[in-house]
Amino acid sequence: MTSENPSVATVPGALMAMEITEQPAIFDRILAESPADVDTVAARIRAASPRFVMIAARGTSDHAALYFKYLAEIVLGLPCGLASPSTTTAYAAQPDFRDVLWVAVSQSGGSPDLLESTRAAGRAGALTLAVTNNAESPLAAAAELHLDVRAGTERAVAATKTYTATLLTLWLLVDAWSGRGMLDGTGLVSAAEQTVAAPGVTEVAGHYRFVDRLVLTGRGYAYPTAREAALKLMETSYLAAHAFSGADLLHGPLAMVDSERPVLAVVPHGVAGTAMAAVLERLRDRGADLTVVGDADTAGQEPAIVLPRVPEELSPLLEIIPLQRLAHAMAIARHHDPDAPRGLSKVTRTT
Amino acid sequence: MTSENPSVATVPGALMAMEITEQPAIFDRILAESPADVDTVAARIRAASPRFVMIAARGTSDHAALYFKYLAEIVLGLPCGLASPSTTTAYAAQPDFRDVLWVAVSQSGGSPDLLESTRAAGRAGALTLAVTNNAESPLAAAAELHLDVRAGTERAVAATKTYTATLLTLWLLVDAWSGRGMLDGTGLVSAAEQTVAAPGVTEVAGHYRFVDRLVLTGRGYAYPTAREAALKLMETSYLAAHAFSGADLLHGPLAMVDSERPVLAVVPHGVAGTAMAAVLERLRDRGADLTVVGDADTAGQEPAIVLPRVPEELSPLLEIIPLQRLAHAMAIARHHDPDAPRGLSKVTRTT
Repeated sequence: MTSENPSVATVPGALMAMEITEQPAIFDRILAESPADVDTVAARIRAASPRFVMIAARGTSDHAALYFKYLAEIVLGLPCGLASPSTTTAYAAQPDFRDVLWVAVSQSGGSPDLLESTRAAGRAGALTLAVTNNAESPLAAAAELHLDVRAGTERAVAATKTYTATLLTLWLLVDAWSGRGMLDGTGLVSAAEQTVAAPGVTEVAGHYRFVDRLVLTGRGYAYPTAREAALKLMETSYLAAHAFSGADLLHGPLAMVDSERPVLAVVPHGVAGTAMAAVLERLRDRGADLTVVGDADTAGQEPAIVLPRVPEELSPLLEIIPLQRLAHAMAIARHHDPDAPRGLSKVTRTT
Repeated sequence: MTSENPSVATVPGALMAMEITEQPAIFDRILAESPADVDTVAARIRAASPRFVMIAARGTSDHAALYFKYLAEIVLGLPCGLASPSTTTAYAAQPDFRDVLWVAVSQSGGSPDLLESTRAAGRAGALTLAVTNNAESPLAAAAELHLDVRAGTERAVAATKTYTATLLTLWLLVDAWSGRGMLDGTGLVSAAEQTVAAPGVTEVAGHYRFVDRLVLTGRGYAYPTAREAALKLMETSYLAAHAFSGADLLHGPLAMVDSERPVLAVVPHGVAGTAMAAVLERLRDRGADLTVVGDADTAGQEPAIVLPRVPEELSPLLEIIPLQRLAHAMAIARHHDPDAPRGLSKVTRTT
């Protein structure tokens, strides 16, 4: 990956590669600069004592929202739903959002439907929080509370650093809100540095060079990673990449898996990894071509991309990085420019 | 489709075909037999005045859950979330579910993780409701309230009649709960009869004979239909069928759409159809091979499967039927037996 090329914009995929490699430094910046803002927001939320959380997001941000859903349910014990923005923007629903924390996640903060549904949530009684990479955005202004994910300007169309910056910011928020104070910041940054350089990605990209259908799977905290990796592969290499939770995979889509349809499983240590054991066994029984993203203990017999171990809650911040690199490498190998996916622009205006 | 063949079990796909054609009669039965039960359950729920709804389901039932989420948010104004069963079963989360209605949807009522998470939801303070096709199931016994969807025994592995029976039962529940009493039952059954025989399915199946990647899209109430149709195609024809909400499609996956990747759009009249107009325009701009499932007004210029018009809320009960027929026809054309998808069984035991 090229991070210091002066003419990055002219080399296919150079922007995406550069932004992937920036991620450890961004983690470092967030850990240094965000805790004060996060503490203020956490105190405001605690004072409001919300009983339910609704999260609104689209695309990559929707996968960060899913990560936050697991955190809110597991760490905070709060029931949590992913909002369908069209219920308020298209169907003019009049929800009762008293005692609801509404969290809108958007890197640009410019999506009209999120803006409108966030305003509607505020009118319906919710405490509203915007999590964006643009503190000057309309969404940041429309919500009562705002957190800046501090990823810096993202130039590649495929979101990478804003995704992990959002995950870390949301994790810090839950950590402060819960009052645990669990983070070892130094460990995370150094683990991210190792992850950016983790071996195995090139080999997997080569193995998948002529694949046009791929299944990704993970459970619990690892499921958002499978979803986000599938989206990266679809938008940069135009692959038919499907993501399923390990449990859902066994309810129907398993029929799709055959020798032409490889499976990439995200298997962290801990609860999600343990819960994946039965799924991996079924996949092996079917003779699936299986690759594992995991750590030294979970990697098993299959080809693997092995990452340093961090607490399971934080593992999604690392696991997506080799999969971003994989999407980049596969696009380049197929002569696509991952910085200029066909049919896409950076801000998607849906209403 | 063969509905009276005495040796149905020996003709590939005969069970699925038969169960597809049973759907109008099942609607008729539900409308005759279910209202009393539904009224009792609705009264119990109203008395509890839940402020938040959590729905737990997997596979096809998860798409019925998504339909219920739109209904609950739009008709009842209740914030609503789709549960991640692993948060309680694997991560041992201790949620605060006071004022929560927990709805577990499962045709068999036998999935161990739904059973465990429903028991945990009850202990955490939720009012629990099981919606199943088996009144004797462990899930029906574990929940405080139960609704039988009355589809009769489903013998095909790919769920068809239990899906639409669940949709109608959930719709009746919301109708009774809201106190609107909106249904014209006769109209629905006759519309379903027309839908089971709607022309166009064979032509679309022929057009897609050699397709191996397909995108399905819809918005609002039509989005669960796109998801369920994709699952049917995956489990019977092993296609790489992707479903996206129309809005999400524009956030990344649009890059996947090209002349080799046709798009099947579900476009009812009403709000969802109106919201799809911009999506269809973008797809036409990209030269997508587009087929529309809609009614006489929404079908537009493209090849279409045209269905009778019912109120938009009820249109998902019809729109899936030609797509079930399509999945069946495509599997037969590809020499797969849709009654015996590889790797699947009727009750999926995930924990």
